[in-house]
Amino acid sequence: MQNELPECGVARFLVLLEGPWATLIVRELLHGPLRFGQLREALPGISPHTLTSRLRQFEAHALVTRTVYAEVPPRVEYELTPLGQQLRTVLDAMAEWALTVPAVADREGAL
Amino acid sequence: MQNELPECGVARFLVLLEGPWATLIVRELLHGPLRFGQLREALPGISPHTLTSRLRQFEAHALVTRTVYAEVPPRVEYELTPLGQQLRTVLDAMAEWALTVPAVADREGAL
Repeated sequence: MQNELPECGVARFLVLLEGPWATLIVRELLHGPLRFGQLREALPGISPHTLTSRLRQFEAHALVTRTVYAEVPPRVEYELTPLGQQLRTVLDAMAEWALTVPAVADREGAL
Repeated sequence: MQNELPECGVARFLVLLEGPWATLIVRELLHGPLRFGQLREALPGISPHTLTSRLRQFEAHALVTRTVYAEVPPRVEYELTPLGQQLRTVLDAMAEWALTVPAVADREGAL
């Protein structure tokens, strides 16, 4: 698992949120704490392995906490830490920009 | 090449800037227009194929222009369009957040 982080902020971001699933996991957790199964349901196509490894990476960098509730069966919840919550500004900026970009077909139709 | 874009802004962003190289290419072009070779030099490890396909995707979505100067040999330059330039806010937000995240080692040392 990647411990060293690049000095460049953008490169550092791309290591911390490695791959598209990482950003989508954060998008879901910004709605509130979720269980593993709920995250898998919200992200069709993600493999358990990828979800586990991304969540572990987030925990290692204190972006997510993993809480086990001593119930029967035990309940495990993942939640963004305050540092993780601050990703809201980045994801909002991503969405705001991306929604100004027309799909290629729209643009060609409009020429 | 991906023409249809997801409705969700974050998912749309991840399609438009697919993979880590795409964001790093934008980071370089935010400094100004560059030639293919200059981009390859600035991004050690990127393959010509990946660079070509990302630049084509950017052109298709009007994020980058490709200008051929009728010189001998011909010079080709890639430049962000105004829409592409607006990615500066997203990359700034990425960097600003990522630089607040300590490398795992620093955090463990501080416990």
